[in-house]
Amino acid sequence: MKRPAIDGGRLLRDIEELNRLGAEPGPGINRVAYSPADMAGRQLVGDWLRELGFSVRQDEAGNVSGVLPGTADGLPPLALGSHTDTVPNGGPLDGTLGVAAAVACARSLSTGSTRLRHPLEIIDFAAEEATMGGGLLGSRALSGQLEKGFGDAAGWDGRPVSEHLAAAGLDWRGLAAARREPGSLAAYLELHIEQGASLDRSGVPLAVVPGIVGIRRYQVVFTGQANHAGTTPMDQRDDALVKAVPFVLDVERVGSELGLVATVGTFAVLPGASNVIPGRVELSFEIRSLDERLLEQAEERLLRTAAQRGAQTDRVSAAAPVKSSTQVVSALEAACEQLAYAHRLLPSGAGHDAMSMAAITESAMLFIPSRAGISHAPEEFSTPEQCVAGAEVLLAGLLELDARLDLKSSEK
Amino acid sequence: MKRPAIDGGRLLRDIEELNRLGAEPGPGINRVAYSPADMAGRQLVGDWLRELGFSVRQDEAGNVSGVLPGTADGLPPLALGSHTDTVPNGGPLDGTLGVAAAVACARSLSTGSTRLRHPLEIIDFAAEEATMGGGLLGSRALSGQLEKGFGDAAGWDGRPVSEHLAAAGLDWRGLAAARREPGSLAAYLELHIEQGASLDRSGVPLAVVPGIVGIRRYQVVFTGQANHAGTTPMDQRDDALVKAVPFVLDVERVGSELGLVATVGTFAVLPGASNVIPGRVELSFEIRSLDERLLEQAEERLLRTAAQRGAQTDRVSAAAPVKSSTQVVSALEAACEQLAYAHRLLPSGAGHDAMSMAAITESAMLFIPSRAGISHAPEEFSTPEQCVAGAEVLLAGLLELDARLDLKSSEK
Repeated sequence: MKRPAIDGGRLLRDIEELNRLGAEPGPGINRVAYSPADMAGRQLVGDWLRELGFSVRQDEAGNVSGVLPGTADGLPPLALGSHTDTVPNGGPLDGTLGVAAAVACARSLSTGSTRLRHPLEIIDFAAEEATMGGGLLGSRALSGQLEKGFGDAAGWDGRPVSEHLAAAGLDWRGLAAARREPGSLAAYLELHIEQGASLDRSGVPLAVVPGIVGIRRYQVVFTGQANHAGTTPMDQRDDALVKAVPFVLDVERVGSELGLVATVGTFAVLPGASNVIPGRVELSFEIRSLDERLLEQAEERLLRTAAQRGAQTDRVSAAAPVKSSTQVVSALEAACEQLAYAHRLLPSGAGHDAMSMAAITESAMLFIPSRAGISHAPEEFSTPEQCVAGAEVLLAGLLELDARLDLKSSEK
Repeated sequence: MKRPAIDGGRLLRDIEELNRLGAEPGPGINRVAYSPADMAGRQLVGDWLRELGFSVRQDEAGNVSGVLPGTADGLPPLALGSHTDTVPNGGPLDGTLGVAAAVACARSLSTGSTRLRHPLEIIDFAAEEATMGGGLLGSRALSGQLEKGFGDAAGWDGRPVSEHLAAAGLDWRGLAAARREPGSLAAYLELHIEQGASLDRSGVPLAVVPGIVGIRRYQVVFTGQANHAGTTPMDQRDDALVKAVPFVLDVERVGSELGLVATVGTFAVLPGASNVIPGRVELSFEIRSLDERLLEQAEERLLRTAAQRGAQTDRVSAAAPVKSSTQVVSALEAACEQLAYAHRLLPSGAGHDAMSMAAITESAMLFIPSRAGISHAPEEFSTPEQCVAGAEVLLAGLLELDARLDLKSSEK
């Protein structure tokens, strides 16, 4: 039996066709969630799937999905997906690549001789970008993880999310009906650009994502005594900046030693005049890791160190890591090896629909390189070859999972 | 012969009377340069001097001065002075104390049996505070140090200095006529509050000022690479903040080791988002010392260190130190000792009229403690005893100088 193949030229043309929606007014791509261009994008994806014989529907959150039956009876679907909404002035591949690659898998399977045992579902999630509150709105609705009051949250332009939904013909009070039950899907796979520079720098073409990191953020305040820089001798100073700067190096060191990322991103020095000794420093730092125990250790060390240095600290937020399904990760690794692509494990530093989906099914992701790590900007770029390679591995991983999952005892 | 004495009660009442001008609208004292309250303040001082037998005049810059003849022929005057203008919402003693103490010396000498060999001149300088451009306008005019274009400089309220002068009946084009020739005064003495906390902390009641420090200011920029804090591993970062913070400690160390003051007062981290690795740090630092060689050494060390750490540096400004007259310093030290006041040498970290006067005569200052170093604010305070002690030493120093300076060969 001939191995099913990705039509790379068609994949690239599909991406181009999608990106003609929202190409004006430039720069970049403008399919902000629930805008007419965004709705038209998912409509286009639905049309493609319908032509391929999929049963297509739009749910209460605006997610568009299509299902193609499998050869075995009673199995839950294997799902592929991502999103086609963008940030304002976004790039051509963030989300769009994953949807177009899923469609490319559908094209391959609906026209070739290979059929999956499982039904195949393609999902184009609504409102993944953080333009509608914190983002992931469609996949959170579908996985039953909508928080209270999401309709009142501010959209990117200040108008409430409920208004954006209404403009797209959707009722925020009905979004919970988009929910799917745990176990209703066999697995979920998503191809995405890395949005970081690790693959681009290392020259490795693919990463399998073992999870999405947890993030903890902190506010730290060092207090000294503002005073005249001309009349206060060095030995009589209480300089908040001099007290705060070693902590920046503490954060750097703890990140390096524990093998997580730790960053001081904001750092305000007050009152901030050239002739006044700083009386106050307000900084924020964050730590990210896939390993909750490492986050605990880093937090414990850094809060203790900050306290020893005389600072006041507050934890501002904490999002737990989401681990990928080991079964799906293993299938994706096997797919890379079958196709002889070098690959590595690389946790995702940002949120994705796959994070939502992990609540109801076996979920994992594939990354291809982002040139210079640039994303959410018109300059976002991956080569055509990288995009096609991602789609090829996505298809191979799908076939691998179809073979591995939901075996009847007689097939085992 | 009975030693002439300061009438402490009268000194304090004179200060109160002056501060009724500009006491409304509160808070603090509001005699901003060339305002009606400010002009009324110097008018009052002129009236007092006239009553004491002084010849009083206002010069082209609005400086008010009075001269009382001495007993010897052909000697230049010994001058005492300070200013009675204030910052908006200023304190009761900055400048005002020095003028009132000079008047107290005049009261003592005009009513007692002691007469000076030299003429005595009392000068109430106009526009000392930096409310009219960079400040010291009256003393710069009198000492021939007006810079070009001062009339166009912005006053504290945005209106040009020339407008403020015109409102007070003065013509900015005529200010240069206030100039006095070098050597036209025998010496200049000024009593002032410290505006720093050194005396207050140490409990020493008086300082003789060996000079006004030079100030050099620098802009330093550290450039890194802004990047996503979640997707950029620690070993692939170029974090501008991590590169910049050791330099803060360099500045602190060089200041302490060389015995000058060195301060990083502004420190901006860009782009300044909790999830973005800093790509740029812009900081300013300044060094101050009475010793030009120390300023040179500190500059050389710090600019070299900054360059070694990869920063770009610019010198933004440099004001040379102004040394006091050793003759006048010696006379003031002798005066402290005669009156059995503990005293120390303490350079001034801020500019004063005495700095202008050093260009044309032998000049030095006396400081009394400022509570907690607070100045330019309604909370500015020195005790009545400290104020009176300052006036007593000023008078004793004046007498000492009168005896020491301009001796005919027959008197030596």
